[in-house]
Amino acid sequence: MITSLVQALQKEGVKVGTIKHHGHGGRPDRVTDSDSERHFDAGAVVSGVEGDGVFQWNIKQDQWSLDDLLELYRPLGLDVVLVEGYKTAPYPKWVMIRKDHDEELLQKVSHIKGVVYSKKKPIKEDFLCFSERHKEAYIQHMIDQIKGELDV
Amino acid sequence: MITSLVQALQKEGVKVGTIKHHGHGGRPDRVTDSDSERHFDAGAVVSGVEGDGVFQWNIKQDQWSLDDLLELYRPLGLDVVLVEGYKTAPYPKWVMIRKDHDEELLQKVSHIKGVVYSKKKPIKEDFLCFSERHKEAYIQHMIDQIKGELDV
Repeated sequence: MITSLVQALQKEGVKVGTIKHHGHGGRPDRVTDSDSERHFDAGAVVSGVEGDGVFQWNIKQDQWSLDDLLELYRPLGLDVVLVEGYKTAPYPKWVMIRKDHDEELLQKVSHIKGVVYSKKKPIKEDFLCFSERHKEAYIQHMIDQIKGELDV
Repeated sequence: MITSLVQALQKEGVKVGTIKHHGHGGRPDRVTDSDSERHFDAGAVVSGVEGDGVFQWNIKQDQWSLDDLLELYRPLGLDVVLVEGYKTAPYPKWVMIRKDHDEELLQKVSHIKGVVYSKKKPIKEDFLCFSERHKEAYIQHMIDQIKGELDV
């Protein structure tokens, strides 16, 4: 879904960034056998490698809040940052409901702009809901919302 | 060498970052099969994944100068950034001489603080020179130089 959104937004000339919370716990998967990783393991707070227009880097600190991460992105002049995870952060969000207990999220999280469900439609009716099968429709709706915010 | 320097500096409480120019041309090696890479491929200007205190991210722009990269590091409050590559940048540097033609670097680059050679000592005598075999000695010398600059 994020990938589709990125594609659609960048086609419209919107400068997009993404942030994801590593879903499986622990550190993000890493590039093994690279000098940059060796520097990081040796105790560098930050290590990076640049090539062909891509700068790839790691930064460590005890804990990261979403706002810490957004602060890192601030100087980059992005139009929009799409975030996966960090459910309790107070930003506009879409909720995905794939398992029965996911429906609890509709009570727990704030700033819900829409819901995508994979099996049965949520009972709580006060949200804009799309079936996961209607991908084109909900992606378009998300894009319209984002562009509305951007005033593009 | 960079790894040894990082280890020695961080043991002394110095907050170190590293930057490396990807030596083999092209993009840095990547974590395959990750959402973050998929977002990047889809057209995100920046994509990142955070887990267990490590934020791993990619940023693309047409070209990066070393100063662009240092600008990204600036908000992180590092004491020192160790850089590999970017030979023409006007910062204090050590030159490694491993092949005969590497000796040309002693004419070409500025701000030389020392030289490490692997085979024969360079003919040009006006630099502090160490054999690669005397690692402990040159690492200590580098550390002393860095700490001198930091006024630690």
